[in-house]
Amino acid sequence: MHALLDVELAAAIDELNGCAPLLAGMARFHLGWTDSAGAPTDEGTRRLIRGKRIRPMLAMLSCSAAGGDAKITAPLAAAIELLHNFTLIHDDIQDRSPNRRHRATVWRIWGDAQAINAGDAMFAAAQIALLRTDSLAVSPGLVVDLLREFNRTTIRIVQGQVMDLEFEGRSDVTPEQYLSMIGGKTAAIVRFAAWAGARIGGAAGTTADRLADVGDALGVGFQIRDDLLGIWGSLEETGKVKADDIRRRKQSLPILMLRNQATDDERTLIDALYEEGEIDETGVESIIALLDAHGVHDQVSSQVELFHHRATDALADVTSSLQQRSVSELSLLVRRLKDRAS
Amino acid sequence: MHALLDVELAAAIDELNGCAPLLAGMARFHLGWTDSAGAPTDEGTRRLIRGKRIRPMLAMLSCSAAGGDAKITAPLAAAIELLHNFTLIHDDIQDRSPNRRHRATVWRIWGDAQAINAGDAMFAAAQIALLRTDSLAVSPGLVVDLLREFNRTTIRIVQGQVMDLEFEGRSDVTPEQYLSMIGGKTAAIVRFAAWAGARIGGAAGTTADRLADVGDALGVGFQIRDDLLGIWGSLEETGKVKADDIRRRKQSLPILMLRNQATDDERTLIDALYEEGEIDETGVESIIALLDAHGVHDQVSSQVELFHHRATDALADVTSSLQQRSVSELSLLVRRLKDRAS
Repeated sequence: MHALLDVELAAAIDELNGCAPLLAGMARFHLGWTDSAGAPTDEGTRRLIRGKRIRPMLAMLSCSAAGGDAKITAPLAAAIELLHNFTLIHDDIQDRSPNRRHRATVWRIWGDAQAINAGDAMFAAAQIALLRTDSLAVSPGLVVDLLREFNRTTIRIVQGQVMDLEFEGRSDVTPEQYLSMIGGKTAAIVRFAAWAGARIGGAAGTTADRLADVGDALGVGFQIRDDLLGIWGSLEETGKVKADDIRRRKQSLPILMLRNQATDDERTLIDALYEEGEIDETGVESIIALLDAHGVHDQVSSQVELFHHRATDALADVTSSLQQRSVSELSLLVRRLKDRAS
Repeated sequence: MHALLDVELAAAIDELNGCAPLLAGMARFHLGWTDSAGAPTDEGTRRLIRGKRIRPMLAMLSCSAAGGDAKITAPLAAAIELLHNFTLIHDDIQDRSPNRRHRATVWRIWGDAQAINAGDAMFAAAQIALLRTDSLAVSPGLVVDLLREFNRTTIRIVQGQVMDLEFEGRSDVTPEQYLSMIGGKTAAIVRFAAWAGARIGGAAGTTADRLADVGDALGVGFQIRDDLLGIWGSLEETGKVKADDIRRRKQSLPILMLRNQATDDERTLIDALYEEGEIDETGVESIIALLDAHGVHDQVSSQVELFHHRATDALADVTSSLQQRSVSELSLLVRRLKDRAS
């Protein structure tokens, strides 16, 4: 399936060729196909940079589950991957992230202004990718529906990013607000992937909607699990140093839950530590002690469990109308939520 | 027609409502509907800020010319207006423009990061606007074609912006490169408006393509005329001080043409003047003297004439297959190119 996706991605990025070669150059660099000078990267580098491609793969899996030929989702899968990458290029500018996937970010090499252009053009290319959907296999009316939801999904993602930026430097963000934020920023695209794949595969509206719920629960669940691992994950499991998110002063769900139930004195201590330029080892240990005292690890684990159940329940609701082999693969994906939550 | 367009614009921007009110707030501010605190503006302010809406109006006119009911182009017209405004929001960040239409720019009020979000979401809303095209009046297959060209147009606009940014600080940009840049940045959307309106109006492919040529010639022609007026226009005609573009050290077409034919000594002088932080009155007079000596005013005027002829010829080619009343209005628009070139 990766090969089919690669063909569609290449066709979409070819749309950027023309009188300003830098545009396609920035896109190919960001996607890991070339280095910053435009020279092709080797296969190993490409695989490393492209990652697991969970979102497009879910769209294909959802199509198979609905009884469709996954091949016809290749343009959709490319559109989803390009949408994701367009938002990453802009996020990196907004968050001033110097690196992504072990390389410099687009803005750091070509400046903010050209990086904005790279993201804008990649978003347009994503739409063109979706429009390449085979009109013999998928009716133009359905393509129009897919495009509408694709753009509504984008708006949900941007709303999440607006909230994330608004949360910066605030100490009064509630866990509920945080969940609303990741519901957009992280989960909206996973929801869309599951829904759109099912629709292309021929699923009825109600079935596609339940698969969308599976996607949504997966998206939120994986983010919460990441937040959990960001503090309690060990080096072996995540490649991250334990308590890494505390050192980076990330306002992830565990910290928001801690603030939510801390005493006034404790909150003063937390605020003081998070306002510092850096948190030293004593500070990290204080935060971990507070998290332990309030049982936050188990509360966050329960949240992961909750979304695991939501995904399982939603999948169970529609299992009878899906292809069993694909359901097994979807179940495996859902189970990873639980298994990997340390 | 403005009222129909307003309805579609409002519906598209309503898509931005939700968990992050700032997003729709920035869009409504940029479009002139509210002030930066979210309070509605008065009708006069709205009219002033929205301007002449030449692009959406051309789409409607092109539809009428093809024999269609202009009402059915309202969603297309809204999409075009939102595409234009999305690029303005991002351009203002890229160019560090403090003001637009007598008000602060979005980035200056809410910062670069949120302004990037405002543009991204407005682009998604533009696509949704186009998807609101009445499926009874326009086949889904045609909507798919329109969307493909809409996004290719966006890529052309972004390519123009990439080139424009690359040209900054360079003294070796040729007039040809400049024309290629404005062909994307300025003319691509005018070309699309003329073409898409005609297609919705029921024009054959060849007729729509010639109307696209009219749009392209209009777009490039008006930009060159602006460049001409930016130096030789008088205060009465343009509201600009004469030689304004020289004072702002803008590398517009007259300056590029001058560089192209200047002697080495003259080029050294021009470079020295344009490298300074500011050009004083003596400097302005030196540049004007050089422009006069090389006859650049007449050369630029000839370029406007050329694009005027191109527009006239393209329109003449298809006049027989168009509604005569709309052709008259299109002719008036084309004639403005010539009349206003001082």
